[in-house]
Amino acid sequence: MIKHLRSAADLDAATATLILDTAGEMAALSGREVKKLPALRGRTVVNLFYEDSTRTRISFEAAAKRLSADVINFSAKGSSVSKGESLKDTALTLQAMGADAVVIRHSASGAPHRLANWVDGSVVNAGDGTHEHPTQALLDAYTMRSRLGRLDGLKVAIVGDVLHSRVARSNVLLLTTLGAQVTLVGPPTLIPLDVAAALAEKTQVSYDLDAVLPDSDVVMMLRVQTERMQDSYFPSAREYSRRYGLDVARMKKLPEHAIVMHPGPMNRGMEIAPEVADSPRSTIVEQVANGVSVRMAVLYLLLGGK
Amino acid sequence: MIKHLRSAADLDAATATLILDTAGEMAALSGREVKKLPALRGRTVVNLFYEDSTRTRISFEAAAKRLSADVINFSAKGSSVSKGESLKDTALTLQAMGADAVVIRHSASGAPHRLANWVDGSVVNAGDGTHEHPTQALLDAYTMRSRLGRLDGLKVAIVGDVLHSRVARSNVLLLTTLGAQVTLVGPPTLIPLDVAAALAEKTQVSYDLDAVLPDSDVVMMLRVQTERMQDSYFPSAREYSRRYGLDVARMKKLPEHAIVMHPGPMNRGMEIAPEVADSPRSTIVEQVANGVSVRMAVLYLLLGGK
Amino acid sequence: MIKHLRSAADLDAATATLILDTAGEMAALSGREVKKLPALRGRTVVNLFYEDSTRTRISFEAAAKRLSADVINFSAKGSSVSKGESLKDTALTLQAMGADAVVIRHSASGAPHRLANWVDGSVVNAGDGTHEHPTQALLDAYTMRSRLGRLDGLKVAIVGDVLHSRVARSNVLLLTTLGAQVTLVGPPTLIPLDVAAALAEKTQVSYDLDAVLPDSDVVMMLRVQTERMQDSYFPSAREYSRRYGLDVARMKKLPEHAIVMHPGPMNRGMEIAPEVADSPRSTIVEQVANGVSVRMAVLYLLLGGK
Repeated sequence: MIKHLRSAADLDAATATLILDTAGEMAALSGREVKKLPALRGRTVVNLFYEDSTRTRISFEAAAKRLSADVINFSAKGSSVSKGESLKDTALTLQAMGADAVVIRHSASGAPHRLANWVDGSVVNAGDGTHEHPTQALLDAYTMRSRLGRLDGLKVAIVGDVLHSRVARSNVLLLTTLGAQVTLVGPPTLIPLDVAAALAEKTQVSYDLDAVLPDSDVVMMLRVQTERMQDSYFPSAREYSRRYGLDVARMKKLPEHAIVMHPGPMNRGMEIAPEVADSPRSTIVEQVANGVSVRMAVLYLLLGGK
Repeated sequence: MIKHLRSAADLDAATATLILDTAGEMAALSGREVKKLPALRGRTVVNLFYEDSTRTRISFEAAAKRLSADVINFSAKGSSVSKGESLKDTALTLQAMGADAVVIRHSASGAPHRLANWVDGSVVNAGDGTHEHPTQALLDAYTMRSRLGRLDGLKVAIVGDVLHSRVARSNVLLLTTLGAQVTLVGPPTLIPLDVAAALAEKTQVSYDLDAVLPDSDVVMMLRVQTERMQDSYFPSAREYSRRYGLDVARMKKLPEHAIVMHPGPMNRGMEIAPEVADSPRSTIVEQVANGVSVRMAVLYLLLGGK
Repeated sequence: MIKHLRSAADLDAATATLILDTAGEMAALSGREVKKLPALRGRTVVNLFYEDSTRTRISFEAAAKRLSADVINFSAKGSSVSKGESLKDTALTLQAMGADAVVIRHSASGAPHRLANWVDGSVVNAGDGTHEHPTQALLDAYTMRSRLGRLDGLKVAIVGDVLHSRVARSNVLLLTTLGAQVTLVGPPTLIPLDVAAALAEKTQVSYDLDAVLPDSDVVMMLRVQTERMQDSYFPSAREYSRRYGLDVARMKKLPEHAIVMHPGPMNRGMEIAPEVADSPRSTIVEQVANGVSVRMAVLYLLLGGK
């Protein structure tokens, strides 16, 4: 088993499949009746969050607690970080305190890789800048497999601000490893030529959502970071929503069996219409539930729980 | 048993009495020797706090932990809420994560009612706007019953800013359900005619604290929200304290057996004099301790612990 | 056993030695295999932090959780404290909730002493203003004893802003109780005459670091509070670093066996050079690890765990 999960590139097909299978067992085991498993009793998981987050922090906390680990939440606000403590010194502190796993969210791309040099425990990337968010990709893959029965050969459209999306980047890596065919869709300014070129081996690129939908098994809508909409390369909100938002009319262009995904939190009415978000095709609530199972599997496997 | 505790109106006399009786058992059981009960082992209680709070959050956390539940604290600050995530999306997240109970404090009246539509777990209102705070009313009723032996026929004066007080509103509902006689006391601007009329069936209204005290078994001083004192309908601090503050001279007008209550945190010297707050008549510290027992009882009964 | 640890002056030599010995047992017991001890199961430890902190809060939290205590974190931000609740009322709240121990950090010197008057549980000072930080002194003493085999007769230089350092103050008290010889080193403005006089019985004072190093077994570098460097009594950063910073050349003046300590977080390049911080003489990472063991010992002994 791998020791760290810093990037979706840490996962080969066999390891990724083992995580998805284990997540399925976790979901089955942690039903209402036996919610708490003793697998990680006595282990300490630290949530080291330099950026605000709701779902991800709570999801990891819930996952670790269901495995009976002790969880210590460390928010960079209200910490020595505000006194200028470096990531290295914070790492040495966590190391000295015997953290078995450190779940890190950081605004700097690559922070989890650096952290892994300084601690003996496992490092799990919970989002680093615009770089990666591998457990999100795992829960997305798990959700696709649950709904559609397979990943190999699946046609997945990832739609929106690909340029800044760690969710998109991790999904491209993981999904192509597992045999899916990914098409990136968005305005040209948000899928620049160099990005498109770099991903060209693995994915296709389209600027026309309507053309892509009829041949997609999965359409994954990325969150629009509204704070980025001031930037010159971003279309106006109205224009963006008109061309790349998923409304009811557009959803009808999908094949009967296709599903709609979103990593949350959604901007209802911007990249996704409320009726689409709440439709039976939508997997948004399942994605959240699957997130806990997938993170249980990751922590369990990385820490060698038994 | 009821599923949610959104309002004191959710409680009929039998249910309220069951909660108070159970709280008594909890208090007896969770003494120094056997502080931790296994009743809710493996259950997850989420504290979803959109407003700052000390006592209430810690009180619920202590109650849940003494019942061996896992507790996840979710503060709206440092969360996706700041990214504009709606209460509904947050609810779906908690639902998907398998929260067995959600304890919510929110600035919007009615938020717990809406939340209960979106989650399978139990919802407990820990204060919604100026609307209700039912566990506060339960701990107040528990405290009265402990000190005075009964609730039926008890004469309770609730004094202060009734207009904005969720504590007052929940107490009126619960105490009248349990047979107590409530008199609301305060300046006319803080007990407007429409409020007085709406409550007229259940309570009496007075603007003269000195006249009410000699015939009261309980006087409950409401907290003055100092940020509201700028408003035009609020008397000056000096005037308010002189007419509606409970000082030593005024306390002497109470019957021998009468008790003084306050939900905390107090403005010592404003609505209550320090000597009164620290006198043997004062139940303020007991109220806090009883809060943990009452919240244990509520969580235990709502979640069907065994 | 003592009930509170408000100051290093609460500790006589026998009690301090018992804590250090117990910390050694804790370190041995809480290795990877049996990390979690049942000693404080069912007990509640409250972390009451009025000042930001990373290491100290997490260290106490980790210590309490390894002893199976329930931990409730209370940060003064986002609390009734912002509504003007007094320390006394907060204390009564914690008391009423049955806190077995309150670990307090506060900007006001003496806050732990006041707190101890209002609660039945044990009070542990985790840093009060510029006054004391006794568990830091204990972990420092533990680290010296581990590395050098003894405390009696040890020559310890404490270097820097002695005037404002609670670490220095607690270390002087504890180390002299345990028979070490302490020399305070720093610019005259940071070791004023009255402080030097008050400590003269117990310690020596020097303004010349280079002269002290060759005869020191331990050199403890204090953190420079960069926010204080604006003050008139503080030398310029460049001047401070040149005269009182520990760089590689200066480290070579130490005896072969001598060790370098720092309470963290460090200003690398200011009071300590990165090469010194990361050298084998440096005990900085051990200090952090030992902090957890020492705090386990303190909580265990104060709470009479078994």
